[in-house]
Amino acid sequence: MLDEKTNVPDADENTDLIRSAEILAIGTEVLLGDLVDTNTAWLSRRLAGLGISVYRHMTVGDNKQRIVAALLEASCRADLVITTGGLGPTSDDLTNECLGLAATRQMVEYPEARRHVDEMFARFGRQPTSSNYKQALFPEGARLIPNPLGTAMGALLELDGALVATFPGVPIEMKRMFEETLEPFIKLRTAGAIVSRTLWFTGIGESALAEKVQDLLDASDPTVAPLAGQGKVRLRVTSRAATHEEAEKRIEPVAEDILNRLKEYYFGEKDETLEGAVGRLLTENCATLALAESCTGGLLAKRLTDKAGSSVYFVEGLVTYSNEAKERLLGVPRELLVEHGAVSEPVARAMAKGVREDADTDYGLSVTGVAGPDGGTEEKPVGLVFVGLSDASGTVAEKLDLSAWRRSREAIRERSANRAFDLLRRRILEKR
Amino acid sequence: MLDEKTNVPDADENTDLIRSAEILAIGTEVLLGDLVDTNTAWLSRRLAGLGISVYRHMTVGDNKQRIVAALLEASCRADLVITTGGLGPTSDDLTNECLGLAATRQMVEYPEARRHVDEMFARFGRQPTSSNYKQALFPEGARLIPNPLGTAMGALLELDGALVATFPGVPIEMKRMFEETLEPFIKLRTAGAIVSRTLWFTGIGESALAEKVQDLLDASDPTVAPLAGQGKVRLRVTSRAATHEEAEKRIEPVAEDILNRLKEYYFGEKDETLEGAVGRLLTENCATLALAESCTGGLLAKRLTDKAGSSVYFVEGLVTYSNEAKERLLGVPRELLVEHGAVSEPVARAMAKGVREDADTDYGLSVTGVAGPDGGTEEKPVGLVFVGLSDASGTVAEKLDLSAWRRSREAIRERSANRAFDLLRRRILEKR
Repeated sequence: MLDEKTNVPDADENTDLIRSAEILAIGTEVLLGDLVDTNTAWLSRRLAGLGISVYRHMTVGDNKQRIVAALLEASCRADLVITTGGLGPTSDDLTNECLGLAATRQMVEYPEARRHVDEMFARFGRQPTSSNYKQALFPEGARLIPNPLGTAMGALLELDGALVATFPGVPIEMKRMFEETLEPFIKLRTAGAIVSRTLWFTGIGESALAEKVQDLLDASDPTVAPLAGQGKVRLRVTSRAATHEEAEKRIEPVAEDILNRLKEYYFGEKDETLEGAVGRLLTENCATLALAESCTGGLLAKRLTDKAGSSVYFVEGLVTYSNEAKERLLGVPRELLVEHGAVSEPVARAMAKGVREDADTDYGLSVTGVAGPDGGTEEKPVGLVFVGLSDASGTVAEKLDLSAWRRSREAIRERSANRAFDLLRRRILEKR
Repeated sequence: MLDEKTNVPDADENTDLIRSAEILAIGTEVLLGDLVDTNTAWLSRRLAGLGISVYRHMTVGDNKQRIVAALLEASCRADLVITTGGLGPTSDDLTNECLGLAATRQMVEYPEARRHVDEMFARFGRQPTSSNYKQALFPEGARLIPNPLGTAMGALLELDGALVATFPGVPIEMKRMFEETLEPFIKLRTAGAIVSRTLWFTGIGESALAEKVQDLLDASDPTVAPLAGQGKVRLRVTSRAATHEEAEKRIEPVAEDILNRLKEYYFGEKDETLEGAVGRLLTENCATLALAESCTGGLLAKRLTDKAGSSVYFVEGLVTYSNEAKERLLGVPRELLVEHGAVSEPVARAMAKGVREDADTDYGLSVTGVAGPDGGTEEKPVGLVFVGLSDASGTVAEKLDLSAWRRSREAIRERSANRAFDLLRRRILEKR
């Protein structure tokens, strides 16, 4: 998988099993907080999945001395050091040079890396300048990590008994390079596997859920850990074993036990979202949906259409921010708006029914509320939200009290969307 | 600002000026990548604004030995060490205990912290258990950092000549505590100020923009740094000086020079967004807007309503995902859809005009395109998008070629939204 170079010691000769890793993000823009680093979290999850213990994350700026120090420290502690960032063509990009300094290796031009720069530029119909060929310089003895998406190749080099792998900071390039080259390389050198299964729940608070599985949370193998956010709770079941299969075998009965206890709140595994679960159920039932949103302002529609393929079940979404639009587009009677106000149970019902009838869909889903941070009154405080659902069997509405999140418009909108999607999800399930 | 305790050495006696800092995030959930840490980036920006150099970020798990080691290392390098996380009531929460170990101080119960736990529980109508009083234990001699939003108070303690401040990991609590307590404390102890101004541009690529200000990018005071993303580019102008005022004075002529050269692409300062700029212009002109979205699926409406106050100018948004909905809701003629297809210039125009007329607004804005990753054809590839704009003076449409981002549905949708908002922004400006 890795380029073979003559006269280069084979990494296997120098490396034993890889049991531990550290991740080093390099770049002043990350250090100054101009960029939130998501690479490190992604790499951590992948390393955990490979059974490797991550000891520490570090971030340093584009500063030679600090990069070298961090590389040397990390390679003392861990078997594998992964760096992201600092592989560009500018004078601020220092990672490979610092790796050379730390390992006391000369920088040399790699012909295949030079060819790669030429090829990538040709693909975009442009000419490289001399500074671009900086990306062909690597510490002598390094193996190259191919980058099919950009000019910056990575390096793999031994440093003080550890392996250091350098990756660019562009997430899409880093991920592809990790998956295609480093991950298979690591897999041959790990002592076991950590396997995790993530189960998603909604409609139950974190502490109420924890009570129901407290004995499992206290157990040590597999471990079960809860994590809550925006009205959803996930349980991560993790086991470490000699093989992937063995770890999975240990997880299975625990996961089943959890699902038995919490069945009514469960909505999916892994990266499942509530809109994903709703989409799946609608597709399976050949059913269609229309949305009428007020305070969520298009958030439900946006989330439904984040993934491709939603056109199968999603017909239309009406963001009726003004009362006039609620009347005109959804046929909400003016008397209802005057008597109860736009944020009320009757209006939520009328919105759901109106959009379903207008779009001629199986389901109509609506949200109306006070998302704040201003605009609340004593009678209708920030966080008061109604979600409505209409289908052929009738129309219902649910009142939500999200006033505990009154300081965050975003939290109120996200939680409202989650509750609305969950209302629809349960309705579809009931019918089956 | 900080609680005064008798027999505690005043921090001023032990501390000189604060010139440098490191940030330490503590928590296995961050180390495993289950949680992307946004606290560190936020703190870095605030520290930069106070003129403090941040040397390094670190993350360690809930592990006593590793937390103590990281605290000792960081306090050797920097004047100030800020930790986030690990202040909860469970056995995994080790930060203050480790600070005590590192500083060889006993853990003692602070009566005011115990009272605070009682008060916070009373506020939520619940009873603390004995484990909750763990949050009243601090290393002897620490000063407390009040937490108005949660039970976890922070600690401020000298360690090897550096100051260590511990904060909870909940962002809203950490930010409030930092702003109310640590920031004023730091301000009295800084040697100078770093001031930054961020200017936002759109409608020009990063390299084309860089060419126009290359001389300024090469200058060293103030420094000018570009950062690009999703069709927008920002330039950050930074100066370090003895006082805030002096730094601002150095920045001003450079910022003005930049604005003169790039006026036509400039849309705002600081945290400005394109939808924010559009909202401001609509408000100033007492104008109203309606949206018709296809491939963006509600993203424009969602972004417009992310901030409160948009109901002044935003009347409605129609997410017409199906052709039938485009006909029924927007009055797009069926012939147009059949002849040109939904992703076409005539349909983009008809959508913008249709929604404007239906909603009776000053402006109608539309987006139709192929967001991918599937669904592209040779004639209409993924990334082909049309944005339409209609007002009393007429209706126009613009063709966008976003095929370079064909691997990312999100990038195509975000860039389409940005171009649509920019089209409207320019139209409003032309009229003035």
